[in-house]
Amino acid sequence: MTLSADDTRWLAAAAALAERARPGSCPNPGVGALIVRDGLVVGRGWTQAGGRPHAEAMALAMAGEAARGAALYVTLEPCAHRSDRGPACADLVAEAGLASVIIGMVDPDRRTAGDGIARLMQAGISVTEADLTPVQAGLSGHAAALLLGRPHITLKLALSLDGCIAAASGESQWITGSAARSHTHRERARADAICVGGATMRADSPSLDVRLPGLEDRSPERWVLTRHSAPDGWRVLASPADVGAMGDVRYLFVEGGAGAAAAFLAEDLVDRLLIYRAPIVIGAGRPGIADIGLDRLASAHGRWTLESRRQFGQDTLEIFNRAR
Amino acid sequence: MTLSADDTRWLAAAAALAERARPGSCPNPGVGALIVRDGLVVGRGWTQAGGRPHAEAMALAMAGEAARGAALYVTLEPCAHRSDRGPACADLVAEAGLASVIIGMVDPDRRTAGDGIARLMQAGISVTEADLTPVQAGLSGHAAALLLGRPHITLKLALSLDGCIAAASGESQWITGSAARSHTHRERARADAICVGGATMRADSPSLDVRLPGLEDRSPERWVLTRHSAPDGWRVLASPADVGAMGDVRYLFVEGGAGAAAAFLAEDLVDRLLIYRAPIVIGAGRPGIADIGLDRLASAHGRWTLESRRQFGQDTLEIFNRAR
Repeated sequence: MTLSADDTRWLAAAAALAERARPGSCPNPGVGALIVRDGLVVGRGWTQAGGRPHAEAMALAMAGEAARGAALYVTLEPCAHRSDRGPACADLVAEAGLASVIIGMVDPDRRTAGDGIARLMQAGISVTEADLTPVQAGLSGHAAALLLGRPHITLKLALSLDGCIAAASGESQWITGSAARSHTHRERARADAICVGGATMRADSPSLDVRLPGLEDRSPERWVLTRHSAPDGWRVLASPADVGAMGDVRYLFVEGGAGAAAAFLAEDLVDRLLIYRAPIVIGAGRPGIADIGLDRLASAHGRWTLESRRQFGQDTLEIFNRAR
Repeated sequence: MTLSADDTRWLAAAAALAERARPGSCPNPGVGALIVRDGLVVGRGWTQAGGRPHAEAMALAMAGEAARGAALYVTLEPCAHRSDRGPACADLVAEAGLASVIIGMVDPDRRTAGDGIARLMQAGISVTEADLTPVQAGLSGHAAALLLGRPHITLKLALSLDGCIAAASGESQWITGSAARSHTHRERARADAICVGGATMRADSPSLDVRLPGLEDRSPERWVLTRHSAPDGWRVLASPADVGAMGDVRYLFVEGGAGAAAAFLAEDLVDRLLIYRAPIVIGAGRPGIADIGLDRLASAHGRWTLESRRQFGQDTLEIFNRAR
C-alpha cells in the first residue's frame, strides 16, 4: 500500500540503519528498526554481529515503556520463529504494545513468511507492508539466498572512457583516482566475499583487503575463479554456476578481470554493476569485459537500469541494477 | 573583468543567439548580439547566412533610435575592417550612440584584434571584455581557424558500457536509442563537415545526412579519411594532419569508426568528445577507439574535462573538452 511521506521517511531511515549490520550480521539478514512516538525516535536498532540481538529487540530495549502505543518501522518482517538464541521478534513486538508496525519486506524465510505479520495482527497491531527501493537493496543478499539460492552479486569495473581496464602493456595503475579507489574499499567492506579471476590473481596478486581506517577487520573472504588450485588465503570457485555453494556468503563482490567479469555476465549472475569511469582515453587497451556470448545486439538491451551516479573527483561512479 | 549577474545573463543570451548562426555563417564566425535598454531587449541579431549582415548590424537595425544610450552585448569584438559588403561594425556601434559594450571575446582576426575595441573607446563608449564559457564555445571554430589554422574538431562515439561500437559480428544498429541518434543529427547540423574512416564508409555506406524535420538542408560536407579515392559526394582527407587544408570548414564532426577516432586522437586533434553511452554490455565487441600510441597510463590523465551530461532516455551523453 501507499505510505505517507512521514512513513516513507522513517522506513528509509530504518533502511539506512540496516546498512550498519553489514557485513557483521552475515549470514543473517541485516535489518534496521526504528520506534517512533509522536514524531520522535524512541528506539532504534540493527542486526548485531553474528545475527543477535535482532534489530527489533535492540530498538525495543532502547524504547522500554515508550514503545507502548508507538509505531515500529522495520525493514524486514519480524521473525516468527523462536530459537535458543532468543524469543521471536513478532512476540516481543506484540508484548511491547506497539500501535502499528510498518514493514519493508515480507520475510521470504519459510520459518516466518507471513507468520510474523499474522501474529502482530492477532495482537491487534495495525500492520502495513511497504515497498521501498532502499529497503529492498539492503535485503538483496537475504532475498537472493532464499529465492535464488545464491549470493547477491556485484560486479565492479574501473574503466576508461573507451572501456579499458588497462593499457595494451597491461599497465593498470591507475585508471581511476584515489577517491574512487577508496570508495571501492568501502564497497569491499560491505561484501562477505570478493572474487577475482585466476589471471588477475596471478598477474596482480591483489590483496583485496580493506584499506580504510577503522575498517581493516572488514576484509572479506577472498575467492578466485579458477579450475586450478589456489594459494593460501584464497578459496576456489570453479565456475560462476557454483556460487550457490559459497557457504554463508550473502554479498559477493566480483572485481574482474575481464574473464571473470564475462563469466559472471554470461551466466546472467550479475545483479549490480558498479562502474567507476575515469575521463581518460586509452585506445586499443585491454577491454574490461571478455566474451559474454551475446548473440544479437537486441539481446543486450533492457537488462540494466541506472540506479545512481556520483562523482569522485574527475571519476564517475555509475551503479546499474539488473532489470529482472 | 568580473561581470554583474545581469551582464552575465545577457551575454549568455547573446551566446545562445549566436547558435542560430551555425552553420550558415561559415566561414564567418557565428556571433550573437543583444541591445538592452532599461532591462529590456530592444534589438537582437546573429550573423546571417553567408556572413552578412553581422550580428551587431542586425541588432542595431532592430533597435533603431532605442540603441542610443543602451548597452550592447556581443559575443565577439565588433569588426574594425570595412569591406565592400558593408561598413565596420565598430563604426556602426559608435555612430549609434550606445553607452556601453560588453564583449565576450577579443577577435583573434588580425584585421580587428583590438582595433574594434579601440574605436569604441575613442567614441566614448564604456567597453568591458568578459570571459564566458558559452561564448568561447560558440566561437571555438573561429578561434581554431585563426589560432591553430584548422577547424574545431568534435569526435562523436556511440558506445556500450564496455566501450564497444559494435558486436564482434560487426552488428552496430543500434547501440543507442532513437533520441540519442536524433541528437547526433542535430550535432551534424551544427557542423560544416563530417568525416568518417575509410573502413566505415565502405562497410556502412553512411549517408551522414541530417534527418531532422526542417534541417534536411543542413547536411554538411562529407569527408572520408583514406589514402585511396572516394566515391561521388565524398571528399578525401588523406591524414588528420591535413585538417588545415579543408577549406572553409570551421567545425568538423568526426563520427568514427575506431580507426578514424584513433587517428585524430593520436594527433591530439580532438577538441571535444561527444560520448553517447547506452546501458548495455556487449563483451568482446569491437572497441570504439583503436591504437592512439599511448605510452604510459599517466599520459592519458588530465586531458579531458567533463563539460556537461544529459540523458536521452536510457542513454547518457557526456561532453568532454580537451584541457589545453
